[in-house]
Amino acid sequence: MYPFLKGHGTENDFVLLPDHDGTVHGGLSPEAWSARVRAVCDRRAGIGGDGVLRVVRGEDGHWFMDYWNADGSVSEMCGNGIRVFARHLVAEGLVPGDEPIPVQTRDGLKTIVVDGEDITVDMGEPQVLGQTAVSIGRSTWAATHVDMGNPHAVAFVESLDPTGPVGSLLTSPEFDPAVYPHGVNVELVVPLAPGHVAMRVHERGSGETRSCGTGACAVAVAAALRDGVGRDGTGLGSAYTVDLPGGTLRIEWTEAGRILMTGPGVIVARGETGL
Amino acid sequence: MYPFLKGHGTENDFVLLPDHDGTVHGGLSPEAWSARVRAVCDRRAGIGGDGVLRVVRGEDGHWFMDYWNADGSVSEMCGNGIRVFARHLVAEGLVPGDEPIPVQTRDGLKTIVVDGEDITVDMGEPQVLGQTAVSIGRSTWAATHVDMGNPHAVAFVESLDPTGPVGSLLTSPEFDPAVYPHGVNVELVVPLAPGHVAMRVHERGSGETRSCGTGACAVAVAAALRDGVGRDGTGLGSAYTVDLPGGTLRIEWTEAGRILMTGPGVIVARGETGL
Repeated sequence: MYPFLKGHGTENDFVLLPDHDGTVHGGLSPEAWSARVRAVCDRRAGIGGDGVLRVVRGEDGHWFMDYWNADGSVSEMCGNGIRVFARHLVAEGLVPGDEPIPVQTRDGLKTIVVDGEDITVDMGEPQVLGQTAVSIGRSTWAATHVDMGNPHAVAFVESLDPTGPVGSLLTSPEFDPAVYPHGVNVELVVPLAPGHVAMRVHERGSGETRSCGTGACAVAVAAALRDGVGRDGTGLGSAYTVDLPGGTLRIEWTEAGRILMTGPGVIVARGETGL
Repeated sequence: MYPFLKGHGTENDFVLLPDHDGTVHGGLSPEAWSARVRAVCDRRAGIGGDGVLRVVRGEDGHWFMDYWNADGSVSEMCGNGIRVFARHLVAEGLVPGDEPIPVQTRDGLKTIVVDGEDITVDMGEPQVLGQTAVSIGRSTWAATHVDMGNPHAVAFVESLDPTGPVGSLLTSPEFDPAVYPHGVNVELVVPLAPGHVAMRVHERGSGETRSCGTGACAVAVAAALRDGVGRDGTGLGSAYTVDLPGGTLRIEWTEAGRILMTGPGVIVARGETGL
């Protein structure tokens, strides 16, 4: 038996496995650990989650978010996951809650700010790589190619209604494989008001999800450029509220060109398991 | 905060909420309780499960399986759930494990036998109501109408391969609405060996599921009649092993005409939540 917690950020959900000194899970072979991740994330036979966040102390003394996908494969970084991770650290008193929290990830050191319900993470600098197009059935839309460390195609559409042209998103929208040789995350967006949009997302390899942190960042970047807001219309110094099926994120594109994502991170249960 | 456990029977999964004297959840209004069931069963924002099994002492002194669907609606009985419920009672020492366990349900008093990994529940008497047909796309199969307290259409097919005529089962197979005015659970079956079949199921209102206890019973009944086994070919006194996507169930049709279902019931995690 070992301890676990379950939490989510805008309904992107995770099983947290505390293993501060590496003695709980650290002795497993890579194969046994991968099998444990799959067992824990199994939504019927296990606890269920989109991934595992192993909570371990890094060699530099910072907490390390050892993040794994539900299929047992390793992953670098997750904007929704790191908010949940930071919430856990503060709730357990493992870090002070009133100062920025350094969290080590495979994508480098991240700094998280917890302010009541709001948790902010610096998602880095976006790369805007031009225009492309995506299609669903007989509908084709212009799309902006934004890279947030992973590839996105952001298309503004008339409606997100699943009975309309956007449809169920059960399968991936069509995209240009010359632009996206390794596939792409496709965001469909409708403007709601100045600085406020709603989106649905088809995540590469996962299908439609309730939330995609990097997708929301890509959407805010594409929206800022489309709206010509921020300093000299570059988008720098703009902010968007992004409604996703699983909740709402606030995306700021700073004057310095970095993307700050703010949203909730919640722990909903804790206990122990022998999976 | 209140205690919970998570468990499953052939991957039909449940959140158990111990509430022995009714003081944990008993004071909630019906609306608040229904909302709690939905919150707990939410697979992203909650713990996740097909339903809630509230563990409460009944007025007759027996344990009462207070069973609720994930959507917050009340339900009478669940053959997979009651195995998990009985496993919990034995594991916690709430009942002796070496004698039959009476469990009160909204469908009456059930008696469960726990024998190591195997848990057996008397599912009552089947009603065989004749022949009908089901269709998927351009394929139509003869089907046996079996009632196990809920309606089933059991069709023997060539293959369960999702790339074949049975397909994804994302939508309900077509059926005769005159025979099934309130819809039907459709089982697709292939024989594997004498006394051994494999099945997939589309559950009314739920889509394809990993396991359906009453569906496995209906399949064993239809198979026994098709194979002409048991006493004088009536199926009485026969037994089938039924492979489902979520595991294997053993179904016995007794000489007395009752269906005994045997399968696993597993507790995988326990803890507390404030959902």
